[in-house]
Amino acid sequence: MKKTQNDITQLNPELVLQQIIAAWSALQTQQPLVHYISNNVAANYVANVLLAAGASPALVDNPYEAEDFAKISAALNINVGTPNTEQMQAMQRAAEAAQRHAIPWVLDPVGYGTVLTWRSKMVDELLAYQPSIIRGNATEISNLSGHMLQSKGVDSTSSSQNIYRLATGLFAHCEVIAISGASDFILSKEYNCVIRVDGGSYLQPKITATGCALGGLLAAYAGVSNSTIASIAAHVHFAIAGELAYQKTQSVGTFNMAFLDAIYELNAEQIQQYAKFNFLPL
Amino acid sequence: MKKTQNDITQLNPELVLQQIIAAWSALQTQQPLVHYISNNVAANYVANVLLAAGASPALVDNPYEAEDFAKISAALNINVGTPNTEQMQAMQRAAEAAQRHAIPWVLDPVGYGTVLTWRSKMVDELLAYQPSIIRGNATEISNLSGHMLQSKGVDSTSSSQNIYRLATGLFAHCEVIAISGASDFILSKEYNCVIRVDGGSYLQPKITATGCALGGLLAAYAGVSNSTIASIAAHVHFAIAGELAYQKTQSVGTFNMAFLDAIYELNAEQIQQYAKFNFLPL
Amino acid sequence: MKKTQNDITQLNPELVLQQIIAAWSALQTQQPLVHYISNNVAANYVANVLLAAGASPALVDNPYEAEDFAKISAALNINVGTPNTEQMQAMQRAAEAAQRHAIPWVLDPVGYGTVLTWRSKMVDELLAYQPSIIRGNATEISNLSGHMLQSKGVDSTSSSQNIYRLATGLFAHCEVIAISGASDFILSKEYNCVIRVDGGSYLQPKITATGCALGGLLAAYAGVSNSTIASIAAHVHFAIAGELAYQKTQSVGTFNMAFLDAIYELNAEQIQQYAKFNFLPL
Repeated sequence: MKKTQNDITQLNPELVLQQIIAAWSALQTQQPLVHYISNNVAANYVANVLLAAGASPALVDNPYEAEDFAKISAALNINVGTPNTEQMQAMQRAAEAAQRHAIPWVLDPVGYGTVLTWRSKMVDELLAYQPSIIRGNATEISNLSGHMLQSKGVDSTSSSQNIYRLATGLFAHCEVIAISGASDFILSKEYNCVIRVDGGSYLQPKITATGCALGGLLAAYAGVSNSTIASIAAHVHFAIAGELAYQKTQSVGTFNMAFLDAIYELNAEQIQQYAKFNFLPL
Repeated sequence: MKKTQNDITQLNPELVLQQIIAAWSALQTQQPLVHYISNNVAANYVANVLLAAGASPALVDNPYEAEDFAKISAALNINVGTPNTEQMQAMQRAAEAAQRHAIPWVLDPVGYGTVLTWRSKMVDELLAYQPSIIRGNATEISNLSGHMLQSKGVDSTSSSQNIYRLATGLFAHCEVIAISGASDFILSKEYNCVIRVDGGSYLQPKITATGCALGGLLAAYAGVSNSTIASIAAHVHFAIAGELAYQKTQSVGTFNMAFLDAIYELNAEQIQQYAKFNFLPL
Repeated sequence: MKKTQNDITQLNPELVLQQIIAAWSALQTQQPLVHYISNNVAANYVANVLLAAGASPALVDNPYEAEDFAKISAALNINVGTPNTEQMQAMQRAAEAAQRHAIPWVLDPVGYGTVLTWRSKMVDELLAYQPSIIRGNATEISNLSGHMLQSKGVDSTSSSQNIYRLATGLFAHCEVIAISGASDFILSKEYNCVIRVDGGSYLQPKITATGCALGGLLAAYAGVSNSTIASIAAHVHFAIAGELAYQKTQSVGTFNMAFLDAIYELNAEQIQQYAKFNFLPL
């Protein structure tokens, strides 16, 4: 699995844009095998988003195969949405294997904090395996950073923008922290900056598991590029698809289909035309 | 979580219609957290229907978090569609917590009776925790009432209308019994009557988990109103969405998307115009 | 459950076409109960495809009910996509019951071979219960035949055409081997021939669980006809639906809905007009 080299020495938007396009192109060509340990709400949707984006998803979530499968994958995503005991064991073995074999992996701490103590404890343990990218909504990331916030169930009630300054403590565990919301904020340890990504549609949070699918897409891009470019590319891919889908329909059922269409139809010209991101100091 | 007060002293259709609209409006404003313990067929679909309707679903189905999560939810739904051992434990703990903390909860005894004895025994045990609402198709409700009928798998082969007189014995365990079918029959202990709801489309049973999603919607409305109004409102919401979706498309794939659109787009004017319900003696 | 009699003494395409139409018609009339032991990626989609096709799916996957439920079903499908321990136990009990009660059943060895040793061992054991039909992609069938090939995750990288000559060893365990791909190849022990089915769309593998759903459809048809006709009919049904859906839309989200529509809308005239199959020597 050839990776895009890190050749950005400055935060040049045009160079980053070319890196995004190169990552998207590599995704189409390499069709990386993404090992996604999912939840039963998200599984089908995540797999469809990953296939539409160009990746090869496989959702092996039993502890007897997780280690061996993580080893041969281009990237791994662990999502603690609706775990059971066997999935929890699978997560630990897959994360351990990913770290040992230098497979890039994404941790999605769904519902971290609040009253969901079982998964939160597991997430704390998974941090030891050094995920490449931690992604979540503002509440999850804030809670994981030790700044406990209220949330409604597994959906965020906090703004991403107010959170990112609190989250840098997580760099002890990962290279990138990606916070999704109306605007997305990607914190890069390597480039020592924040990348803000705009676009998308307010309808996305009205469809279940869009955050989970974004996590899968982060893993897919991490299978073909470095963690920072992967994170920008995945959020840009999602944001453009949301924006273009919303131009076609403004209700949730048809939007969801149009969104999958747009994930699939994305091309270099659209990235060039619609990508909205800018750099902020960390 | 403010609840709609029970101010109907007579079964005045116009007053009930206003209560339905008030419940729908409260659902939009309060976005109640609905704890749904689901099955792996229904999980994604139920979550999308609940989001479209205005609620905040979370499908926590492990025994280690179920009790704590039920306590902080506005309502709970327990669906025994495809259970495993851990989900069964989660159901029991969540139901117990819901009863103890006076959280309204819905029991959906999918496939009760027939040869599915494991789940049926669990449903028998769950009755002790006094669900607010028991919902099912005619076969399930009849079987649960002790009048065993034949069914084909988990789908009903019986008519709702013939069943509801048999079901009142279940009032020992709950406030409302909601029987879905071509026409829906809602049996209210509090108001000592049956409410018949019409509308919908014959295509709804051709889409898997519509009954499960209706159960989730019952819970969502029970999070913002009393059990009887919640049941009428949820069935009316579903029936109008089915009717309007069918006006757009008559095949199952596109119908399903149009149905989610219609669940999302419902408004007070549509309720006023399309709601079809009437009262029958119990 | 009346079965279509085997009255083909020669491989007459016109007679086979009439058998396919008769099987499709029987599916609509009998609505066979299909017991599908699934994975959490495929469950919802498979159920929707089966409902659209005319069958009555039920996805009972716990070991406590699997045996009793298999016994009363018209057919069984076992899919090892994302198994857990309880589902594995359920598979074994259901397969044993199916064999004992002469219920036709389909084995779908998702991901067989490669590094997925836990499921592969289970598949080896399930062969002892003599599935009626084994279905898979070229890599899975080749690996199961003892000719190990590379694959990317659970999706095939091999061509069906090159594989079928290797697969006849599996006739020790089953009546039919169905290999899906750009063209499908159905190996029939009874008729001592290969049936090649063409049609469909290149978009089908871009939607997750289409192979799983095809397996479910094989079981549904096996509930109303013999294994060979069931296999041809299911593949033809799928191929026509894929072809007609692709005429409506060329992107994945909307294609998926159009595909479900087309599965549902299929009729005898379309089968007559669009079915593409021919016979090859084994």
